[in-house]
Amino acid sequence: MIFLKNDYSLGAHPAVLEALVNTNMELHDGYCEDEYCRKAADKIREMIEWPEADVHYIPGGTLTNLTALAAFLLRPHWSVISADSGHICVHETGAIEATGHKINHVKTSDGKLRPEDIEEVMIFHEDEHYVLPKAIYISQATETGLVYTKEELMALRACCNRHGLYIYLDGARLPMAMASEKNNTEFTDLPQLCDAFYFGGTKCGAMFGEALVIINNDLKEDMRFLVKQRGGLLAKGRLMGVQFDALFEGGRYLDLGAHAVRMANTLAKGIAEKGYEFYVPQETNMAFVMFPKDLAEFLATKVMFETYPVVTETHQCIRLVTSWGTTQKEIEAFLSLI
Amino acid sequence: MIFLKNDYSLGAHPAVLEALVNTNMELHDGYCEDEYCRKAADKIREMIEWPEADVHYIPGGTLTNLTALAAFLLRPHWSVISADSGHICVHETGAIEATGHKINHVKTSDGKLRPEDIEEVMIFHEDEHYVLPKAIYISQATETGLVYTKEELMALRACCNRHGLYIYLDGARLPMAMASEKNNTEFTDLPQLCDAFYFGGTKCGAMFGEALVIINNDLKEDMRFLVKQRGGLLAKGRLMGVQFDALFEGGRYLDLGAHAVRMANTLAKGIAEKGYEFYVPQETNMAFVMFPKDLAEFLATKVMFETYPVVTETHQCIRLVTSWGTTQKEIEAFLSLI
Amino acid sequence: MIFLKNDYSLGAHPAVLEALVNTNMELHDGYCEDEYCRKAADKIREMIEWPEADVHYIPGGTLTNLTALAAFLLRPHWSVISADSGHICVHETGAIEATGHKINHVKTSDGKLRPEDIEEVMIFHEDEHYVLPKAIYISQATETGLVYTKEELMALRACCNRHGLYIYLDGARLPMAMASEKNNTEFTDLPQLCDAFYFGGTKCGAMFGEALVIINNDLKEDMRFLVKQRGGLLAKGRLMGVQFDALFEGGRYLDLGAHAVRMANTLAKGIAEKGYEFYVPQETNMAFVMFPKDLAEFLATKVMFETYPVVTETHQCIRLVTSWGTTQKEIEAFLSLI
Amino acid sequence: MIFLKNDYSLGAHPAVLEALVNTNMELHDGYCEDEYCRKAADKIREMIEWPEADVHYIPGGTLTNLTALAAFLLRPHWSVISADSGHICVHETGAIEATGHKINHVKTSDGKLRPEDIEEVMIFHEDEHYVLPKAIYISQATETGLVYTKEELMALRACCNRHGLYIYLDGARLPMAMASEKNNTEFTDLPQLCDAFYFGGTKCGAMFGEALVIINNDLKEDMRFLVKQRGGLLAKGRLMGVQFDALFEGGRYLDLGAHAVRMANTLAKGIAEKGYEFYVPQETNMAFVMFPKDLAEFLATKVMFETYPVVTETHQCIRLVTSWGTTQKEIEAFLSLI
Repeated sequence: MIFLKNDYSLGAHPAVLEALVNTNMELHDGYCEDEYCRKAADKIREMIEWPEADVHYIPGGTLTNLTALAAFLLRPHWSVISADSGHICVHETGAIEATGHKINHVKTSDGKLRPEDIEEVMIFHEDEHYVLPKAIYISQATETGLVYTKEELMALRACCNRHGLYIYLDGARLPMAMASEKNNTEFTDLPQLCDAFYFGGTKCGAMFGEALVIINNDLKEDMRFLVKQRGGLLAKGRLMGVQFDALFEGGRYLDLGAHAVRMANTLAKGIAEKGYEFYVPQETNMAFVMFPKDLAEFLATKVMFETYPVVTETHQCIRLVTSWGTTQKEIEAFLSLI
Repeated sequence: MIFLKNDYSLGAHPAVLEALVNTNMELHDGYCEDEYCRKAADKIREMIEWPEADVHYIPGGTLTNLTALAAFLLRPHWSVISADSGHICVHETGAIEATGHKINHVKTSDGKLRPEDIEEVMIFHEDEHYVLPKAIYISQATETGLVYTKEELMALRACCNRHGLYIYLDGARLPMAMASEKNNTEFTDLPQLCDAFYFGGTKCGAMFGEALVIINNDLKEDMRFLVKQRGGLLAKGRLMGVQFDALFEGGRYLDLGAHAVRMANTLAKGIAEKGYEFYVPQETNMAFVMFPKDLAEFLATKVMFETYPVVTETHQCIRLVTSWGTTQKEIEAFLSLI
Repeated sequence: MIFLKNDYSLGAHPAVLEALVNTNMELHDGYCEDEYCRKAADKIREMIEWPEADVHYIPGGTLTNLTALAAFLLRPHWSVISADSGHICVHETGAIEATGHKINHVKTSDGKLRPEDIEEVMIFHEDEHYVLPKAIYISQATETGLVYTKEELMALRACCNRHGLYIYLDGARLPMAMASEKNNTEFTDLPQLCDAFYFGGTKCGAMFGEALVIINNDLKEDMRFLVKQRGGLLAKGRLMGVQFDALFEGGRYLDLGAHAVRMANTLAKGIAEKGYEFYVPQETNMAFVMFPKDLAEFLATKVMFETYPVVTETHQCIRLVTSWGTTQKEIEAFLSLI
Repeated sequence: MIFLKNDYSLGAHPAVLEALVNTNMELHDGYCEDEYCRKAADKIREMIEWPEADVHYIPGGTLTNLTALAAFLLRPHWSVISADSGHICVHETGAIEATGHKINHVKTSDGKLRPEDIEEVMIFHEDEHYVLPKAIYISQATETGLVYTKEELMALRACCNRHGLYIYLDGARLPMAMASEKNNTEFTDLPQLCDAFYFGGTKCGAMFGEALVIINNDLKEDMRFLVKQRGGLLAKGRLMGVQFDALFEGGRYLDLGAHAVRMANTLAKGIAEKGYEFYVPQETNMAFVMFPKDLAEFLATKVMFETYPVVTETHQCIRLVTSWGTTQKEIEAFLSLI
C-alpha cells in the first residue's frame, strides 16, 4: 500500500532516533531541567533571534494548545477567537472549554482568520453579559494546509493590537508552512507576529513532543505550574530536549518540512496535469482532490488515505498527506494509478 | 416616560408581594425544605399533570441554566446544541463553558432550532476527537419572542430521541409564549416535550426566582447537590416557594403572561396600521420595529426602550417590550407618538 | 416552640420589607445599575471610609464566596488557604473546587486561622509541583461564632503581606462579630485588614443578598463579568440595593447584630449560671452547650435547635442561635426549661 | 557520582529501546488503534486474567491520574478521598481540583489509607451541603515506598463496597510493590481489589507512558473521549503500545521491579548494619535514612540524592532511590562511604 494518510504515523526521523539511543543511559535532572532541554531552547532562541523567549516541552498538540491557552485566558470570562474549522474548535473534544473558556467560533470561507472576522466579534462583545475575547488562535499551516502570508499575519497583528488581543499560533506543521511557495515569513518574524506559538515535533520528525515558545512577558509567569497542572511536565522531559536538539541541528527541521512539501508539490502537479480538481489549493503537504467516485474506490485498494466530507453526485474529495518520510517512488506510484 | 424597555424592571406583582409580606415573620426550615416550596411544587406537578416531577427553586435565569445543564452534561465531553442566538450562547458571559462544557452553536435564520440543524451537528460529531452532543437548549419564547408550535417541538423531540439527546427548555418567558396566538401547546404537553424546563419567575410577576422542573428521572439524582454547589440553594429558599405559590394561584401566572401579550398585540397592531415594518414578527411580548431614524430619535425622548443592532441607511430597529405591568394607557400614549 | 435553630429563617426586617414594598412599582435599570444600588454602595464607602471601594450585590453566601474567590484566584494553579472548618471547605459542596481551584485545608484548634498555620503551608509549597497559595479565607465571626481581634487580624495581614497573599473575609455574620464583647475592630479597619469582604445580608436583616466589597485594586477589573458568569448578576439587582440601603440607614445594620448578640449573651449567662458547660466560648450569636442527654431530648420537644456532632457518654452538644428577631421572652422561656 | 536520586532519570530499558528502534519506520493507525497497543492490552488482560479489561495509554502519571479520576468523578459534586500525602494531593499542582473536583484529604500516620479513615469521612458527609465522596485514591507502593498487603486492600474494598466508592490505584511503582517482601498480592488480584489502576511505565523501564486499566464497566464508556479531551491521546500512540509490549514480554516488567527492590534491600541492609535509623521502613525501592548532618553533607559530594524535609538537631533525612538500572557496584560504593 502507498501511504498518504497522514504525517504522524512514522516514528522518529533516524537522526532523532539516534540521538535518543545515544543518550538513553544518561542520567539527568527530571522535568525539563536538563542540559538537552536547555540546548534545544537556546537553539530556538537563536533561530527566532529572540533571546528572551521561554521554551516549554509538552508531549502532544492538544495538550500544548490547552495549556498555552490556559496561560492566555487567565480570567474565567476571557475567550479565544478561532476559525470554526480550527483544530481547537472541532478536533480536540472540547479541551479548551473543559478548562472553562469559551471559543468564539468564526465562520470563514477557507479556514483562515482575517481582521474583519475579528472586528465582527469584537463589535458584538460589548459588556459583561458577553465573554471578553482576549486572544486569537490561528494555525500555520491551517487544517487544510493553507499558509498565512506575512502581510496577512501583520494585518492580524495590527487588528489584535487595536483590541488588546493576544495571538497564539499553532505550529503543528510549521516547517511545512515555512517551506511552502506561498510563504514569505521567516522564523525571525514570529516573535513580532505572535505572543506564543509552538514548533510542532510530532508531525515534523520527532517521536513525540512539541516545543511551546512564549514571547510575550505577560504570559511567562508561572508557566511551569500550568504545564504541570495539566499533566504535560514529563518526568523524563529531557527526551523532548534530546529530540528537538537533534531536529534543530543544521537546519534539519526546515529540511524535513521542505521534503514533505516537495513531495506534495510533485503529487499535486501530477494530479493537476491529469485534469483533476482540487477542493482547496495545495500549498503545503496536503492535497484535497475531487476524484470520480469509482476512481476513489479503486485508489482505496492501493493507497492509504482519508476521505474528506465533501461529496458531489459524481465525485468524492480525498485528502492526501505527505511527510518527511514520503518517497519520490511513492508519489510516482500514486500518479501511475490515476 | 413611557416604559417599554424590558419585562424585568418592576418589582413583584402585588399579589406576590402581599404573600411575601404576610409570611415574612414565619419561621421555616431553610434551603427550600419548607411548606411553601412544597405547595408550589405540588401546584406545578398538578399544572403539568406529572406527579413525578422534581422542582428546584433558583434565584436567577443564568444560574438556573448553568445548574440545569451541569446536570444534563455530566460527562466532561458532553456538549449542548443551541441556536447561536440562544441566551446561553451570547448573554451569559460563557457561564456554560465555565462549567467545562462546549456549546455547539448553530446558525439559524430566526433563532429557532430545527431537526435539520441538529442532524447536521450529529453527522459531523462522529468519534472521540469531537465532543459528544447530549442535549439541546431551546427557549420558549425565543430571544426575539418567537414561539415554537407543538408540531415543531414534537419534531425536535423525535429527532432528539433518535440521537439520545436531552431537551432543556428555558422558560424565562413561558407564560408569554403560552399566551401567544401562535401557541398550541399547553403546560400538560411539556413533560412529553422536554426533559427539564423552568417556569420563569423574574419576568413573570415574581420579585426573583425561577422554578426548575425536572421530568426525566436520569436527571433527578443529586440535583440538590448541584444547586448548592453552584450557589443557587438559598438559605431563605422559602421566599421563592411563597412567590410561586402566589403566582400559580387561580391561574394568575398565565393571566400575567396573557396581559403582557395582549398589550404587545395592541401595540404591534397599532404600529402596523401606521405602516411601519417589523424586523421579526411579533408573537409574544416583544416587538422589533424598523423606525425611520429621526422618529427613533424622537421616540427616545419620550419612551424608554432598547435599540437593536439592525440598522439600514434610513431605519433603526428598536425593541419594545411589554410586561404584566404595562397599561393600555401607555400603549395608547406610544401609538399617539408615531 | 421556641426558635433557636438558626439566624436565617425569618424574612426581612420590617424596615427592609417596607422599603421593598414602597419601591416595588418603581422602574429602574437592571443588573445593579440603579440608584438604590448606588446609594447603598455610597453608604458602604462612607461606613468603611474607603471612597475607592467597589461594591457588588450577589444573592447568597456561597455564590458570593465562589465568585469573589474566582476573582482572587485568577491563575489556575493558585489556591486559597482556609481553616478546615471554614464554610468553603465543608459546607459549600465543593463550590470552590468546582471553579478549578484547590483549597489548602489547615487543621486548627478553634476554627481560627493564624500566621503559623499560613507559614506552615507556605514552607511546604515551594515549586511548580505544588499549587501556589495566593489568598486566605477567613470568616468574621467563624463558623462557631468566634471573633478575630484586631491584633489577630493585623498579624494575619502582616503574614499575608510577607507572602503576597490576598485576604478574603466572609462577613455572613459581620454585624454580630462587630457587636461582640471580644471585638475591637471597626468597619473603618476593614480596608486595611482585608482585600475584599462581604457584608452579610441574609442573616442580618435582609430578605436575601450579600454586598461584596472590593478594596484591592488588583481585584476590581472585570468583576461584573465574573458576577454575571457565575449567575449572580440579578436582572432585578435593585432589590438588593433597596435592602442594603434600608439596612445601612441610621446604624440599623449594627443594631440588628447587637440585638442578636445581646440575646445570646443573656442566654449564655443563664445557661452558665445553671452550671452547664460550653463546647466553644459564646462570643457572638451562637452558643454551643453540652447538655445531659436526657435534657437535650426534653429540650427538643420544646425548642427548635440543631445538635452539633460532639457527644460524650453522658452529654450532647447542641447549637443555639439567636437573630435580630429573637425576643427576650424566648430567651427567658428557654432558661426556664433547664 | 553515585546516582540514587530517583527512578526516572534513565531512558528506556535496552529491550524497550530496541523495540522502538525496530518498529520506528512502520506505518500504523494513529491514536492507539494499532496492533502494538492491542497486543500490549492483550498481554495485560492475560496477566490480570480479566478479559473484559479496557486499556488506555497515556503519556504521564499526572495526566493519567487526572483523566482517570475525571471518569470516576462524573458528577460535579463527587469527590475522591486520599491520604493527604497522596501524589494527587500534593505533587500535582491541583490537577484534580482543576478538573472541578474536591479531594477529601485524610491525615494518616504513614501515607496508607485505611477503612477507619474512610468511615470518618463518610460519616461527616451527610447531605447536599457537602461534596459526595465517590472514589478513593491509593497508590501501590505509596509515596514513601510502603506496600499495601492483600488483607489491607481487601478491607478497603469491603469498606468501599459498603459506601458505593470506587477504588483507583496509582501504579507508578507497581512492579516494585509486587517485588517487595511485604507484598502478598498478585496481578490477578487487582481486578477484584480495584475499579481501575495503571501499570506505571515511566519509572519501570519505559521511555514514557502509563497503561491505564479499567475493570469496572461503569467507568469504561467514552473513556477515549476523556483521554482525548485532557490531551493524552497521542497521535503516535503506538509508541506506548510498542514499549509496553516489550516490557510485558517474558516477565520483564516484574523482573525490572524486582531488580530495583533487590538493590534497595541490599542498600538498606548495609545501612542498618552500620547502625543508622530509617524514617520509614524500606519496603520497595526507596530508603529514607536519618544520617548525621555532617555525613549527609559529605555524601552530597559523592552521591546524587534528595533530602527529605525531616530534620532533627543532629540528623537529616535523605531519600535514596534505586531503579532497574541501579548496579550492585553502585550500592557497594555507597555503603563504603558510610
